[in-house]
Order: sequence, then C-alpha cells, then structure tokens
Amino acid sequence: MAGNSFGQLFRITTFGESHGEAIGVIIDGCPAQLPVDLEYIQSELDKRKPGQSKITTQRKESDIVKILSGVFEGQTTGTPIAMLIPNEDQRSKDYTHNVDVFRPSHADYTYMAKYGIRDHRGGGRSSARETAARVAAGAIARLLLKTQGIEIVAHVSSVGRINAPNIEINNAQEFIDEREKNIVRCADPATAEEMIAYIDAVRKQGDTVGGKVSCYIKNCPVGLGDPVFDKLHAELGKAMLSINAVHGFEFGSGFAGSEMHGSEHNDLFIKNKDGEIMTRTNFSGGIQGGISNGMPIEFRVAFKPVATIMQSQPTVDSHGNEAEISGKGRHDPCVVPRAVPIVEAMAALVLADHWLRNRNSVLEVKG
Amino acid sequence: MAGNSFGQLFRITTFGESHGEAIGVIIDGCPAQLPVDLEYIQSELDKRKPGQSKITTQRKESDIVKILSGVFEGQTTGTPIAMLIPNEDQRSKDYTHNVDVFRPSHADYTYMAKYGIRDHRGGGRSSARETAARVAAGAIARLLLKTQGIEIVAHVSSVGRINAPNIEINNAQEFIDEREKNIVRCADPATAEEMIAYIDAVRKQGDTVGGKVSCYIKNCPVGLGDPVFDKLHAELGKAMLSINAVHGFEFGSGFAGSEMHGSEHNDLFIKNKDGEIMTRTNFSGGIQGGISNGMPIEFRVAFKPVATIMQSQPTVDSHGNEAEISGKGRHDPCVVPRAVPIVEAMAALVLADHWLRNRNSVLEVKG
Amino acid sequence: MAGNSFGQLFRITTFGESHGEAIGVIIDGCPAQLPVDLEYIQSELDKRKPGQSKITTQRKESDIVKILSGVFEGQTTGTPIAMLIPNEDQRSKDYTHNVDVFRPSHADYTYMAKYGIRDHRGGGRSSARETAARVAAGAIARLLLKTQGIEIVAHVSSVGRINAPNIEINNAQEFIDEREKNIVRCADPATAEEMIAYIDAVRKQGDTVGGKVSCYIKNCPVGLGDPVFDKLHAELGKAMLSINAVHGFEFGSGFAGSEMHGSEHNDLFIKNKDGEIMTRTNFSGGIQGGISNGMPIEFRVAFKPVATIMQSQPTVDSHGNEAEISGKGRHDPCVVPRAVPIVEAMAALVLADHWLRNRNSVLEVKG
Amino acid sequence: MAGNSFGQLFRITTFGESHGEAIGVIIDGCPAQLPVDLEYIQSELDKRKPGQSKITTQRKESDIVKILSGVFEGQTTGTPIAMLIPNEDQRSKDYTHNVDVFRPSHADYTYMAKYGIRDHRGGGRSSARETAARVAAGAIARLLLKTQGIEIVAHVSSVGRINAPNIEINNAQEFIDEREKNIVRCADPATAEEMIAYIDAVRKQGDTVGGKVSCYIKNCPVGLGDPVFDKLHAELGKAMLSINAVHGFEFGSGFAGSEMHGSEHNDLFIKNKDGEIMTRTNFSGGIQGGISNGMPIEFRVAFKPVATIMQSQPTVDSHGNEAEISGKGRHDPCVVPRAVPIVEAMAALVLADHWLRNRNSVLEVKG
Repeated sequence: MAGNSFGQLFRITTFGESHGEAIGVIIDGCPAQLPVDLEYIQSELDKRKPGQSKITTQRKESDIVKILSGVFEGQTTGTPIAMLIPNEDQRSKDYTHNVDVFRPSHADYTYMAKYGIRDHRGGGRSSARETAARVAAGAIARLLLKTQGIEIVAHVSSVGRINAPNIEINNAQEFIDEREKNIVRCADPATAEEMIAYIDAVRKQGDTVGGKVSCYIKNCPVGLGDPVFDKLHAELGKAMLSINAVHGFEFGSGFAGSEMHGSEHNDLFIKNKDGEIMTRTNFSGGIQGGISNGMPIEFRVAFKPVATIMQSQPTVDSHGNEAEISGKGRHDPCVVPRAVPIVEAMAALVLADHWLRNRNSVLEVKG
Repeated sequence: MAGNSFGQLFRITTFGESHGEAIGVIIDGCPAQLPVDLEYIQSELDKRKPGQSKITTQRKESDIVKILSGVFEGQTTGTPIAMLIPNEDQRSKDYTHNVDVFRPSHADYTYMAKYGIRDHRGGGRSSARETAARVAAGAIARLLLKTQGIEIVAHVSSVGRINAPNIEINNAQEFIDEREKNIVRCADPATAEEMIAYIDAVRKQGDTVGGKVSCYIKNCPVGLGDPVFDKLHAELGKAMLSINAVHGFEFGSGFAGSEMHGSEHNDLFIKNKDGEIMTRTNFSGGIQGGISNGMPIEFRVAFKPVATIMQSQPTVDSHGNEAEISGKGRHDPCVVPRAVPIVEAMAALVLADHWLRNRNSVLEVKG
Repeated sequence: MAGNSFGQLFRITTFGESHGEAIGVIIDGCPAQLPVDLEYIQSELDKRKPGQSKITTQRKESDIVKILSGVFEGQTTGTPIAMLIPNEDQRSKDYTHNVDVFRPSHADYTYMAKYGIRDHRGGGRSSARETAARVAAGAIARLLLKTQGIEIVAHVSSVGRINAPNIEINNAQEFIDEREKNIVRCADPATAEEMIAYIDAVRKQGDTVGGKVSCYIKNCPVGLGDPVFDKLHAELGKAMLSINAVHGFEFGSGFAGSEMHGSEHNDLFIKNKDGEIMTRTNFSGGIQGGISNGMPIEFRVAFKPVATIMQSQPTVDSHGNEAEISGKGRHDPCVVPRAVPIVEAMAALVLADHWLRNRNSVLEVKG
Repeated sequence: MAGNSFGQLFRITTFGESHGEAIGVIIDGCPAQLPVDLEYIQSELDKRKPGQSKITTQRKESDIVKILSGVFEGQTTGTPIAMLIPNEDQRSKDYTHNVDVFRPSHADYTYMAKYGIRDHRGGGRSSARETAARVAAGAIARLLLKTQGIEIVAHVSSVGRINAPNIEINNAQEFIDEREKNIVRCADPATAEEMIAYIDAVRKQGDTVGGKVSCYIKNCPVGLGDPVFDKLHAELGKAMLSINAVHGFEFGSGFAGSEMHGSEHNDLFIKNKDGEIMTRTNFSGGIQGGISNGMPIEFRVAFKPVATIMQSQPTVDSHGNEAEISGKGRHDPCVVPRAVPIVEAMAALVLADHWLRNRNSVLEVKG
C-alpha cells in the first residue's frame, strides 16, 4: 500500500536502491504451468541496461537476473516468483557531493521532505535503476501474453523535435528487428540516424534532451479493461506515468482528438472479410469505454530531458543555503532509447493483469 | 477489485446505471470529525448536472444527493459514508433504438463482448452519469482538503482549436468566481465568449467537439505521493483517464517537455523571502520523483468529442449486420464545461487519499 | 481499506447504522449472467430478521431488500450490485439513556475512544443490524455457488452447555428443512427442544446465554484457498470472527486436535468406489495446506452471550463518572438462532471469492 | 492478491520454497526513521530455527538474515525493506521418495490438484520454513511497536493434554526470560518439565503431538482495529490460522464463553486509581466491537500434531495407486516450541498494521 506494488491479479512488488546490494521483484499471481525462458528475460534486461552505446550512460552493470523461487523445472508453480538483480558498479563516491545538496529536478528534495532521511547515493530508490526490476517482471508477463498471441512493441517516435513518421506494423517481430538495428531504437532508419546525431551533439554540450516512445499492442482480445476506474487506458496511463521522467500520456487520438469533431472522430463499425466486427478508423486507440475493442491499442509517452546535466547549476543545500552543483556521475544524454523496453514491460504488466481479470467477467469462464 | 473502487485510504466505490433507480457512492476511510456541508456537496453536483445551459444536454436531472450513513449531527463518524442520487428523468424509450445496434465510439460493443449482457438504456454503467457519484464523493474530499488549506481549481482551457491564454492564479475563489460567470467555464472571459459561440455553431450542425481542462492545485504540502508506482502524477493521471471521453493527460511541461533540453527544463531551487525552498520555474508541475514539492501542481486533460451526434451514421448491429444509427437522446455538444467539476473531484480524491497516506511516512506522525 | 469491505474478487462493501435511514451493500466483482432470484435473497434475510419468535428480539423490521443496480432483466450484468435495506423500526428514544453511558461489553466505549464521536442510537455501526447487508450479499454468493453444486449448511450445535450430537449430512436441503422446523435452528429435534426451553428460562431471568454454530460445506471442489496467508480456513476464520459476538473459530479437529497424536490425526488417502481420491477420516476438516481437498469442509463458531441484559449493572459514563445501566431496548436472549444465516452467508462470500480466484491458478483456465 | 501478502499499511509479501535457493520477505509501508536492530531480528529467527534442541527437528539451518534494501545508516528510509534468508541444508534427496506419493495430512495432494505442478522437495512453498520470513518481518514490526511501549509475549500453554496454569504477566521481559529457560518455551517451569518428557517419549515412538500457544499483548492503546470486517480479533485470527498446522483460534473467553451467561460474562467498566477507564474482568480479551479497549489482549492458538511421523502409513500416489510412506526427513515431534516466535511475529504484524491505520481514524492525527 506504500506504492511499491503494481497490478491486482498479476501483481508485482519491487524493492532496492541504486547503490544498495541488489534490486529485485516479486511476482504474485502468475498462474502455474507457464514455461519460463530465462534467456528471454535476460535479453529484455540487456535492452535496458546501461553502457549499451555512446548515447547511453557509461555506467556498467551486467544486470544478471537470478530467479530465487516460484519456478520449478522450467515452469511457474503458482507460488511467488522472486527475481534478484545484484548491483555491481556501485561507485558511491561519485555521489558524495550530493549528500547535502539537492540536485535540480531530481527527487532529492522531495524524498528528504517526505521521509526526513534518504539514501543519497545516486538517487537511491528514486533512481531509474528500479525499472530493471519492472523489465524482469514484465518479461514474464510477456511470456504469458505470448501464449495468447498478444504482442507488444514500442519504439522511439521522437527525440527533441525530430519526429518519426507513422509506421504501419504488420509483423511485430520484424518491427522489433528493424528497431534494434540502431542504437536509438527508432524503427524508421532515416529518422534514427538523425536522432543519434542530435543526441550525440547534445551530449557533447553536456546537455540532455527529451523524447517520446510510441507503443502498439497487437492481437489484444476484445474485453480487457474494467469499468469504471480501472479502464484499460487509465491503467496503462498510470503504468507509464509511474516510469521515471514521464510527463505525459495519450492514447488513440490523444491531445489532437480534443480539437476534432465527433463526426470525424467516431470510429464506424464495419465487418472485415472474415465477418469480424472492427472499426474503419482507430481514433479510439483500440479501447472504448475502457475496454479493448480488438483493434490495435496505440499510445504515446512523453519523457522530459534527463535532469542530470554536465553543466554547473545553482541550487540549495539541505540547510537551505545556496550551493552549486554539476553532474559528476555517468548519465544518459537522452533516456528514450533505454525506456523502450520499460514501456513495453509496463504495458505487458497491465495487459497480463487484465487478461487474468477478464477471465472472471462472466460466469462461464473465459480464456 | 472489479474496477468500481478508487483510492487506498480515502476509498470510494460507486454503483448505478444511467437509467436504473439510482446511482451512488460509498466512501470508506474518511476520518471522523470532519464537518459535512451538504449544501456544498449539492452545489458541486449542480455544476455537473445536465440541463444547465444551451450548450449542455437538455436532459433534466435535479441530482439531489442524500446521505444515508456515516454522518451524525453534521460530522463524519469514521464509518462508511453512503450517498444516493436517484435517477429521475429516465426516458428509456429514447434508447430503445439502441437495443441491438452498437453506437460508434461508445462502449456498447465492448460491454456486450465482455459481459455478454448489457443494460442498453442510455449507456447503462458506461454513461457519464456515473461521474455524479464521483463529484459527490469528491466534494467530501475537498472539505477534508480545505481544512488543510489545499485548493483545487480547474477551468476549460480549450475547445476545439480555441485556446485560453495562461492564467496566473492568485486566489482560488476569485478564479472560480470568474469561471462561473460564463456557461463554458473558462476563466478568461474573451476566450469564453468565443468558445460558447463555437460550441453553439457545432451543436446546430448536430455535431460535437472536444476540448481540454486545465487544473491547478494550490497550497499542496510537500511530500504527497508514494514512490514508485503510486507517484502523485501517476495517480492523478489514472484518475483523469478514468473519466469518460478523456484521451490524454500531461502535467508540468507535459508533451512539450519532450522537446526541451535539460539545461532549460531543470527547475532550479531558490529560497523565497520567507526562507522557504521553492523552484524558479515549474516545469516539474509541482511534482518531483512522484512527490509534491510545494509548488503549484498543474496538469491538463484532453477530452475527445462526444460520440453521440445528431447525424446519421452507418454501424453494425449485435448480429453483425450493417445498420444505420442517429442520436435521438439529449446529449452534450461539448463535454468540457460539465467536466470541470469532475476533474476537480477526481483530483480531490487523489489528494485526500495521499494526504492520509503521507501521515504515515515517518514514525513521528505528520499532519 | 477502513474495514468495511470483504473479499478480493467477489468483494462486498457494507454501510449503514442501526438507526440511520438504511443499511446496504455493494457487491463488486460478481460475474455477469448469473440469474438473480430476489425471492431467495429475501428468504435468507427473513431467517436473520428480528421478531421471528419468542426467543429472538421483539424489535420489528421487515428487512425488505431492494436491488438498485447491477441486475438487468433478471441477470447480473458484471457491474456493481447495490442492495438497500431501509430501517423502519427506529425507536431511537429507547437509546437516549445510552448517550453518555458506556454499556458493558458493548462497543460504545471503544468507538468513542477511537473516533471521538459516535452514533449512540442502538449501537450505530457496531450493531449486528449490519449483518443483514452481509446476508443479502451472501445470498447472491450462494446463488453463484449453487451453479457449481456447492452447498453450505449450518445449524446451532450448542446453547450454553447443551450440545447437539454430531449429525451426518447426506442431503443439504433435508438438513435445512429439519433445522427450520424449530425456532432455535438446531437440526436435532430433541436437542432443539431442550435448547428452546433453556433460552426461554434465561430470557425470563433477564439474562442471556452464548452458543455455537456448526457449518458444513458440501461438494466443494478441490483447490480452493490460496497459500500462504489466504489459506481457506484462515479466510473462513476471519469471516466468522468478524461477526458480532464471535469469540472463537475452529475447523476439522480444532482445539481437540491439539491433544491428539499424529498417528491418529493423519487423514489417510484412499480411493472411493469411483476411483476418486479421498481421505478415510476428516480431521483436516476438508482443508489441507490451506486448500480444499474435496472432503466436506467443517468448522465451528463460538458466540459469547449477548451483552445487553435486562438487569441493572454498574458502569461508567463518558465523563468517567460511575453510573448504572439496564437494558431497555429489545434484544435477543441468545444470538445463535439468528446467527445461522449469517454464518452461512459469510462462508458463501469466502467460497465465492476463492472459487473465482482459483480459476486463475493455472494458465489453462479452470471452471 | 494470490495470498502471499499480509497487512494493509504495514504490508509484507513473502516468497521462497523450503529447498530453493532462499526465502525472503519485502515489507512495504514501514515508516521512515525507525532504528533497525539487526541483532534483535536475528535473535528472533534463532528462536524459530531448526536444530535448537532434542525436541525439535535436527535439520540444520543457520537462518542468517540479510537486509537488501530500505535501511540506510541503521534506520528505515520509508522504502521497501527486503530481507533474504538463504537455504543451506537442502538435502533434497531426503524427499525423492515423495515425488509421486501424497503424504497424509500434508499439502502435497492439494497443491498438485490446484496447480498441476509442485516443488516436491520437502513441502516446497507449503513448508513451515516460509514462516522464517514472517519472523524476520515481525521483528521489525515489534521494533516499531516497542517505540510505543506495546509488548507481545507468547508461550506454550499446552502439549497434548498437559496444560500450564494461567499466569499473571506483570513484566513482559521477565516472562520471556522465564520461558526461554526451558526448551519447550512454557513459562511455568514445572509444566515445562512435564511437557518436555512427554514430547521426548512421543518422539521415541516415531509419533508427534499437538499443543497450544497462548499470547498476551500488553500496553496496547485503546482504538486499534477497524469495524466491521477488519475487527482486531478477526485480523489476529486470520494471522494465526495462516500459520502452518493451526486448527483453532479463540480470544478472551473463547469457546468457554459460549457456555456462559451475559450476567457473568459482561466486563463491567470501572475507574482505576489513575482515573483511567478499565474493566473489572477481561472476558472480552482486550477487544470490544473489534477495537482494543486498553485491557491486555489475550488469545490462544491450537496446533494439530505434525503430520510427518516416523511410522509407515498407507497412502495413494499421483496416479491414484495405493502406496506406502514413512517419514525420512528430519521433523519436529511437536511444533509448538518453535511456533512461539511465529505467533508473536504474526501478532506484531497485525498490531503494527492497525497502529498505522488508527492514526487516520480522526481528522486530527493520532500517535
């Protein structure tokens, strides 16, 4: 209840500080008999880990995950799945300059005000390192969803003012393969090149820049999402907004939809060649009344620029005195390339939870 | 767990269909000894009720709320507060044409697919009528917050492409008074006039249009919000996205922040004249690391255009056959004027919940 | 979270005070398409209502239940089911003598100490009247369980030191029919007669007496109950202990089991004629490791004597002064006859919840 | 939601199997600034660990606990506290004979039926080894309660039919010191001797025996416990019934209370010398209407005999064939001596949770 758990039926609880001994996660509620592919989980973590390329932080963490419980002879047993990721590269001394000084637009000040105590080494609990635990748990959620054919893919759709064109996704794996060909994780090669050059230039100025991640969920069955407070997009929204540095969420027509007329925005129902009901357009982003309607789910997530910059900035210390600060740790000039697997993981956690929840929507069981 | 409850400590559960006997809400967890001003609750409901002006639906509901429990001699007792709002104007026959036909961009199809049964009269549970229960509960949350000096104000900041200028809010009540002077609930009189004319023109075409509501929270103490999943903005985001027709949420710099550099986006800490720590800018929107930092909390909510239009549209019926539909009920040409009290109510519910949660952040109690 | 909700998936929230306008309950999470038999719900309430016989309180309440939402054309719709029971016989003046005086072994003092305010009319929220809402919700849970063949039956197995012999239950309905033939609700006619005479004698002395209710669940499928904290018997235990006046709970061998040896207590597995696995004895009470094993579930619930007696007792008032009190309202000399439907209702709520929960135990859905 | 979490505000989630790599627990919701005494936590675990004496199992586990997060420079930080206890003595081969055979009165059969897969090594998740995680978490809850002067003490009050006399507890520490002088953990030395001799005799027969643990909570403030479902005794009851081998729970007058009259059972209010309100007797066991009344809280927990006996027993295997089984692992002849710290830990978790919950009972904060 103190905010470190997420989900109702597929429920995770994460723990750990950036410079403590380890971070980790417990999944409670994963059904039994799900085959667990440890290599897949690790490969997802590898996409999030630091030190991948010149446009990510140079901090080194191998981020090797270990399953402590809940899996027996390669399958889930229905008991809690605990996963541990040891912290290796704990150069805490990089952060001694932060003991008494509040870094601008970080959580130093608010944690101190809230708790009266904080682990000042590299952000502690507020560090984005915590998201590694989410990616590990999300990988298991995705394994669950894959048994149902549900695919989740995301990519970097903008960096600063550089926007990728809209991409039609026919095959989820091909999309991911294309995206993984470049270090910025944008599925449009030309835009990717532009983004990389831009991030690199920003990095050389000791500055950072924001961006957006777009996410698509394919083959989502009709019926996921619970009225009225747990609408599918409300849960996706919370999931995304809980990721470090996220400042906005929109699905379907999003903010642009607020400028439209009903007569152009309405998604008219039609039957496809197989006689299935679908809609002609998809301004609803695959969700109507909070419930998935079988069309692709589409949403976008806005990330602010990373707060730690390699420039000197005035600030205030814990005694209220004026102070000076400049980033000395190893940080990302742009967070979105590493955010892609996090967005996918959080989406998977929401979907897995609602897939389980929906099996009890009617007396005759679903699924 | 089926989605009709919201909040952890200040927890509401709503019930009721648009054309059933009544809608209502139970609040569990409101502390004892809060004076309850029934007139205030009713006045909030009056701002949401239909039939207020020419630019809202002409459906008539007096929306008189009745408290059934939890209040004794004018004060809360710590026991559940049940509130009931009878449905009066149940012209169900307006909806008989919807029995078998799925209205475009409504929840008819998804409810039917999910539950295999639906109350087809006017949207049933998916109707925005459910939000009246939220406004009633939110009014009690606001009474709680007022004892702490916390003020929540919202207004219509855009209709279609008509945007209000940014407004500095010095006095919450004055802002509200200004806003209430016009039927579109925009605090800028000139923009309001333009918006009203535009909505009226859209209405005459039998069409509808979207818009945005901006919300500001003043005097929020430092420390509200729980890392890591229940970040204050994540909870606000979920709250807003759970409101009917909402397609986007952003706080602080929002989507625009994704285009900025860290060096311009960072909110530098300074001391004000009273020696209190504050920030020079407020791109963080009053929230850092998911925890309120004492600056005004600012967010924006995007509403899509109302789906029911007074024009004929092709659709599909429950047997999968092609059909024709045109709105016959009484609907809003633009939902944002009536959405203002709903946005405020949901914000109040989030804040009240987190204000209670924060009292247990440290061993020595807060508050 | 303030204690007025029960259950995870089949979740109820009750509200209302004994002398307020109404009491009621919301069920959230009942699957759609369950046929709802309102007469059955009412008949369960009639078994709990006051004024049934000379050995129950003479307070008159017709306890007519009304469904406000969640049921459409005789079936559940998957949306919250709200049920209301108006309070009729609110002779509040019977309780004016309690305004300032704490009745011994009632909740007057603890409510006042906890909340600093209380509805002093007849116990307010602490009144057993609240259990009517549980019986109404439990009746819907039982309708759900009946679709699966699960039967729950209870009866009064002791009053004071008068104990009924153990009864083999072959047919649940016959057992209930036999029990309903007498006003004390004991399925053994000879013991029932003895109990009635005893209660009547106690009543004439202005005194009260305790008793026990035994409950049996037949045809419970194997697999209900969740390790490790939500063991089926732990949830049943909490459910029973939450009923007013309950002071003890035991299942299977219970307290007597603590005196036994493993060699006599172990329930050996055997195959019955149909080749199904069962146990020779049932000291486990149908539950092993917190999970139902297919044998009948058996438990017993101990009720203390009703605290309100028609005798004068010394006490203390809210100012800490010594005072005198004697019961003036209309109360039960023995609570167990009316407790039988409450025990059954709470058992049904636990079982319905865990039946839903168990459908997600494995990837391939159950049920 | 799958049953591996306990508590609302002071919330724990445990994980781990008896023969996996480790077991552990996450505490979410512990307030910041609580000094954490690791030695104290370890000393509590030492009271539960196997191999303590001739009357406990000879399995060797050092049960060294490690804190992975949430504690910084000796104090809690308000972030999740993760604790890990590695499994050392994993003689899994002791259990290879259990692969296909269901041990009588164990959870082998029900786990298999529920999940279709089970970790058959020594009980897996159903092993009482899981309770070590509870003891570790409970120790932190007790540190929290100690800051408020709340003391929790338990001892073995019966083994088989050997019952300890009632003991007046004046000083909690002295009571514990007395109890710890003997290996059966009974605070009455003469009874302890008798119990030890009895258990030893039972052990030599390859048999086991049940017993009871009595628990007392001193200096509990008035007001803990939430009506109506989360009554303090209902939560304590669930907590105790969730401990392996528990078959019964009673508080205050308990089952004996069901035989009493109201006129003798009522706890009359009096003022003590300090002018405080208390009751003359304590049949209510310190709890009235589900809320603590300031008197000592008293309850008793019944444990069945350990199911694993060193005798041959007929059973059934997973194919439904008849089989023979005899205990080959290392097990306890009587579980209650090692259950004492577990009962105390679970009580502490309930109390810490409700102590936090109660701070929000009134608008003006408590505590």
